[in-house]
Amino acid sequence: MDRASGLTYAILGTGALGGYYGACLQRAGLEVHFLLRSDFALVQQRGLVIESPDGDFALPQVNAYRRSPDMPRCDVVVVALKTTQNHWLPELLPPVVKEDGVVLVLQNGLGVEAAAAAIAGPERILGGLCFLCSNKVGPGHIRHLDYKKIAMGEYSATGEAVGMTDRLRRIAADFEQAGIPIEMAEDLVLARWKKLMWNIPFNGLSVVLNATTQEMMSNPDARALAEALMREVMQGAAAQGRAIAPEFVQTMLDHTAKMKPYRTSMKIDYDEKRPLEIEAMYGNPLRAAQAAGVNLPQIQLLYQQLRFLDAQNLDVGQKD
Amino acid sequence: MDRASGLTYAILGTGALGGYYGACLQRAGLEVHFLLRSDFALVQQRGLVIESPDGDFALPQVNAYRRSPDMPRCDVVVVALKTTQNHWLPELLPPVVKEDGVVLVLQNGLGVEAAAAAIAGPERILGGLCFLCSNKVGPGHIRHLDYKKIAMGEYSATGEAVGMTDRLRRIAADFEQAGIPIEMAEDLVLARWKKLMWNIPFNGLSVVLNATTQEMMSNPDARALAEALMREVMQGAAAQGRAIAPEFVQTMLDHTAKMKPYRTSMKIDYDEKRPLEIEAMYGNPLRAAQAAGVNLPQIQLLYQQLRFLDAQNLDVGQKD
Repeated sequence: MDRASGLTYAILGTGALGGYYGACLQRAGLEVHFLLRSDFALVQQRGLVIESPDGDFALPQVNAYRRSPDMPRCDVVVVALKTTQNHWLPELLPPVVKEDGVVLVLQNGLGVEAAAAAIAGPERILGGLCFLCSNKVGPGHIRHLDYKKIAMGEYSATGEAVGMTDRLRRIAADFEQAGIPIEMAEDLVLARWKKLMWNIPFNGLSVVLNATTQEMMSNPDARALAEALMREVMQGAAAQGRAIAPEFVQTMLDHTAKMKPYRTSMKIDYDEKRPLEIEAMYGNPLRAAQAAGVNLPQIQLLYQQLRFLDAQNLDVGQKD
Repeated sequence: MDRASGLTYAILGTGALGGYYGACLQRAGLEVHFLLRSDFALVQQRGLVIESPDGDFALPQVNAYRRSPDMPRCDVVVVALKTTQNHWLPELLPPVVKEDGVVLVLQNGLGVEAAAAAIAGPERILGGLCFLCSNKVGPGHIRHLDYKKIAMGEYSATGEAVGMTDRLRRIAADFEQAGIPIEMAEDLVLARWKKLMWNIPFNGLSVVLNATTQEMMSNPDARALAEALMREVMQGAAAQGRAIAPEFVQTMLDHTAKMKPYRTSMKIDYDEKRPLEIEAMYGNPLRAAQAAGVNLPQIQLLYQQLRFLDAQNLDVGQKD
């Protein structure tokens, strides 16, 4: 494998996630172009700084852009925005995707590729789920805390598993080259439901219960709740024809119990008064299950609690 | 009807509820004996002060006791403690109930009479549900804000409806004499489930969502949640052979929308770092439905969220 595939990368959203992965790709010798908003001027001047348990590094010069029409068209356009920002994609995507380029949607939840697929065409979409713990601590300054793996797979409009493709292998190789472990998913929808097994209980409950993973795992009621929610996620996956082994519940609980006390991404968004990714993580899975005739009453309750709290939170945020 | 029935009353728990009703009874000419703990000395000296939209009044002299063995045995012993204090009943009740006396359990929830029934015998128990909005604002100082009706009925160990009895009519007449509207319930268990139609959604959600009734009713998600929880309460009632008409849901929602913005009793308890009445209001109804083979998944989720929040709340309270 070459040190560089020759693929060029655009990063739409240079935050804790896009900034981290983009910087790793650039450090590995790949050509990377970063779209920024508020941090543009500072990053254009000083580049990016990454703190990481793998070793800190700085990229004093990066290709920074304020508007996507200023960017060169790229082979791989990485969507690293929050799903709550997907309404910007019709403006951002078209100018930056090469004629035979692809879009890699690095977002949590279910059905999150649909927005990009509607613009670039479903045959040009890949999806990825990041197991990443990182924060943006300042403009162009990212603190990587733990994990970094991405589960990545080909998207299909019907939801059917696509399996392996050459382009998936090539992109995965670039990320591996950059030090990012990649799990190539033959069935992207299954990978998404498996990630939801963790995200649905712990993201939502952390907001509603104002609690860290450790506080939840050390309380029998919260632990039982997480487990019950996971079993409903399994039912949702089954409604879409995806079997998740019941043992996976225990694996996730054990794993979570062993984690460092962790403030989930949704709790961080809530505390920072940013919009919560409720539709990607709860609304879409609920609607997918519902379409197959399956109700998930506990996830439904949590979903509506979160919608209420999000609305109150943003309302208060605006008043401040 | 005489101005006074000749029945004597003991009030166990002279707080916002017991203090208010006891004071009304005494003002109407009935003999009332009040058990107090922390407020004993002050109330013995100065009596009770009631502020009320019906007119403020003071009772400079009341029969106040610190210990129930000091009280005379009474015809009607009113249990006006929180259900979380029912573990004190084995100590409090026996000395104060007359040989042919009865115990009137004025508590919310389901199955709350069982503790008193185990001590005094099930044939001597009546239950009541208070539609009362009042606060204790200082020792012996109660502020009645709104409502005051009591739904009252005979208890039976089997849960079967007992219908009307002379003693129920006599006690009801005393309360009516004291200005308290009484709804005599032929079926106490049905009355309890009907009250749960409001209490289960609004008490729990007010704590979990940190919201007043008005904030919940003006948000479509919280309103839908309340409605879904009410439908589960109806299923619980049906599991115990009690039919609640579906129209009752809309009646309750309309009523709640018209109420003044209201901080529920459970939210007040939570904010004051007092134990929440979770088992009476959620645990017992869930177990009753479960015993009849009916799961109520959304109430179950809310129950466990409340148990978590209660545990964290009391934990923090103790540290303070």
